Amino acid sequence: MSIEHYMQELGSAARAASRQLAASSTAQRNAALLATCEALDAARDSLAQANAEDLARGRERGLDAPLLDRLELTPARIDAMLQGLQQVAALADPVGSISDVNRMPSGIQVGRMRVPLGVIGIIYESRPNVTVEAASLCLKSANATILRGGSESLASNRAIAACIASGLRQAGLPAAAVQVVETADRAAVGALIGMPEYVDVIIPRGGKSLIERISRDARVPVIKHLDGVCHVYIDAGADHDMAVAIAVNAKTHRYGTCNTMETLLVAAGEAPVLLPRLAEAFAAKGVELRGCARSSAILPGVQAATEQDWFEEYLAPVLALRIVDGLDDAIAHINHYGSQHTDSIVTQHHGRAMRFLREVDSSSVMINASTRFADGFEYGLGAEIGISTDKLHARGPVGLEGLTSRKYVVFGEGQVRC
Amino acid sequence: MSIEHYMQELGSAARAASRQLAASSTAQRNAALLATCEALDAARDSLAQANAEDLARGRERGLDAPLLDRLELTPARIDAMLQGLQQVAALADPVGSISDVNRMPSGIQVGRMRVPLGVIGIIYESRPNVTVEAASLCLKSANATILRGGSESLASNRAIAACIASGLRQAGLPAAAVQVVETADRAAVGALIGMPEYVDVIIPRGGKSLIERISRDARVPVIKHLDGVCHVYIDAGADHDMAVAIAVNAKTHRYGTCNTMETLLVAAGEAPVLLPRLAEAFAAKGVELRGCARSSAILPGVQAATEQDWFEEYLAPVLALRIVDGLDDAIAHINHYGSQHTDSIVTQHHGRAMRFLREVDSSSVMINASTRFADGFEYGLGAEIGISTDKLHARGPVGLEGLTSRKYVVFGEGQVRC
Repeated sequence: MSIEHYMQELGSAARAASRQLAASSTAQRNAALLATCEALDAARDSLAQANAEDLARGRERGLDAPLLDRLELTPARIDAMLQGLQQVAALADPVGSISDVNRMPSGIQVGRMRVPLGVIGIIYESRPNVTVEAASLCLKSANATILRGGSESLASNRAIAACIASGLRQAGLPAAAVQVVETADRAAVGALIGMPEYVDVIIPRGGKSLIERISRDARVPVIKHLDGVCHVYIDAGADHDMAVAIAVNAKTHRYGTCNTMETLLVAAGEAPVLLPRLAEAFAAKGVELRGCARSSAILPGVQAATEQDWFEEYLAPVLALRIVDGLDDAIAHINHYGSQHTDSIVTQHHGRAMRFLREVDSSSVMINASTRFADGFEYGLGAEIGISTDKLHARGPVGLEGLTSRKYVVFGEGQVRC
Repeated sequence: MSIEHYMQELGSAARAASRQLAASSTAQRNAALLATCEALDAARDSLAQANAEDLARGRERGLDAPLLDRLELTPARIDAMLQGLQQVAALADPVGSISDVNRMPSGIQVGRMRVPLGVIGIIYESRPNVTVEAASLCLKSANATILRGGSESLASNRAIAACIASGLRQAGLPAAAVQVVETADRAAVGALIGMPEYVDVIIPRGGKSLIERISRDARVPVIKHLDGVCHVYIDAGADHDMAVAIAVNAKTHRYGTCNTMETLLVAAGEAPVLLPRLAEAFAAKGVELRGCARSSAILPGVQAATEQDWFEEYLAPVLALRIVDGLDDAIAHINHYGSQHTDSIVTQHHGRAMRFLREVDSSSVMINASTRFADGFEYGLGAEIGISTDKLHARGPVGLEGLTSRKYVVFGEGQVRC
């Protein structure tokens, strides 16, 4: 069987399963999540064995240490998977809620019902726990899923998929509700993103180059997360203690996350007093600064930033630093160099705070808060499948709502149109 | 200058204008709409002259009568354009509204702000009034627009664009907020749908083949309307008077619209009594029936429907007719043969009505109402740029809300993440 044919079979089965899921009850889907949890708990030995196979093959293939680390299913990671399943089961069901029902002059009542998207294709790299995370959120929102993990985690993903299949079976749901692509052939990705008849949306999770390639080639809508070049702008008259606390937290709380600050903008009037304080705080954390020409007048010896630095997502203890004339300058910098992810202003000026909120074109815009808060859990979504840097459909942290759509529902009593 | 370069210049100017629009006030955008209205009213002579040029060239090129009709800007059509502008100016501004603000355990308040999408590309065919309709909805929602009308209406579109430019100027908004592509070269479409750096979404309006081609080739998200294969299902125990009234209205109110019923499904138990009544009603309206094998047992002599008929969007006085065993059969038929546009059930059974609402996977699902109600105005949106058959972002009639997105806004008081 060719890869294309194999993927079409998965697609067709997923489409059929998505119809059954759309008609399934909340209780059934929750039961499947909890039964999967039990199945995974009971299968710890076989999971460990499958994962050991992947790890051994990975070492043979010369995968580097961080990759091998992400690939490993430790007992603690399995515990976290089980906990995640229980949390998702406990969330409110987004599907079927009807809102905004209004009576129109014609007499019909028009409202909107939240419904699953249908079939979701997830393309991701090594971490096998994504298999459970993604499958559980899609299942909760009554979507069928086709999961295409990295070839290096194939055995682990198969073992996890067997547990999910058992959970689905126990709840009376079709096994094709969650399918794992069982081939390492790269052509499977091309097929998956080229079947609009079977797949409603693709969610890629991984490096920027993977996501760019998928976005470019997909014939199916993609909910994507590209890079996070996040900014903090310290406005004229800002509270300096607050400014330092937010800047340090936004940069140093974690270096490798997409909502970490990469460039700090400081209003010119505050710079002479504030920059030395900031430089000291960042030096204490071991963060390297790369400054604009004006900042080097205040911080002699700071490394000069190049044009490329303003575009850079360092994901490391490095920070670009620029003095700006004021709000207009800051907004222009962010909208030009940023990646429309998350940007924050530190200010006590109401008008400028509200202008920053309105005019910065990013998925999360903040006043007096660390960019690190841009996260589905911190936003109260209860779950997160990713952070979208798209403008259409879902923007920012994507929870269950982003995996659904709203259709119009009309309640009539025999009305016809005049 | 090459077409690609020309389109890039339009794109870059549109992107810059979209930033200014995002920062513009409601009053400014409304002023631009009303000033455009006045400019069009004052330019009736030059509009007529430009339109006469297009019509003369169209006749030379041998355009058919319906196309020439759609191309014509009669005084009544200009009146309708002016009225449309005034109506759009009077609508509430969707941009900037903040909703769903909740305080999180960390102390931050998280909400969602409605914002413009950015730059919208509209690709359409002959009707020059679309130029004003589309531009006004995009401008109201603070989006920049690049309009690519049909080559046959280029002179009319230029004349209209001059009036819009004058309206923008008077309101202090950049002329590049609304740009008309000034070339008939088809490569312009290819360029427009391939500039994700400048264009955020494409809305094609026109025939199915145009839309399919654009969807296939676009590297930018597309809000699209494909076909409308709409169904009415008459359930067991339905009120026969209501069923006949809805079926006749859904089919015969207008034949050429996307929300017109194309296939009628009748529960087997009702068919012996109901089919003769329906056949009589449709015969009186001159509608040709194409029936399934079971229906021909009740209506001898009815033309036999082929498999292809169930997929057909007739847009004509022709109706496919099928007897189904009941609700499950009806839902399966609709989800298989339909186009996920608009489907209605006629029933007095509450449980089956609610199952139909939930399980029919279409952008509008109705109980006891004519499919003809699927329309932005009938739904109270106040405007309509199209009806989306997509699942992501906007589904069903698309008004101003569909031309916007929601970003997260965070109100803090110095919070950092622990």
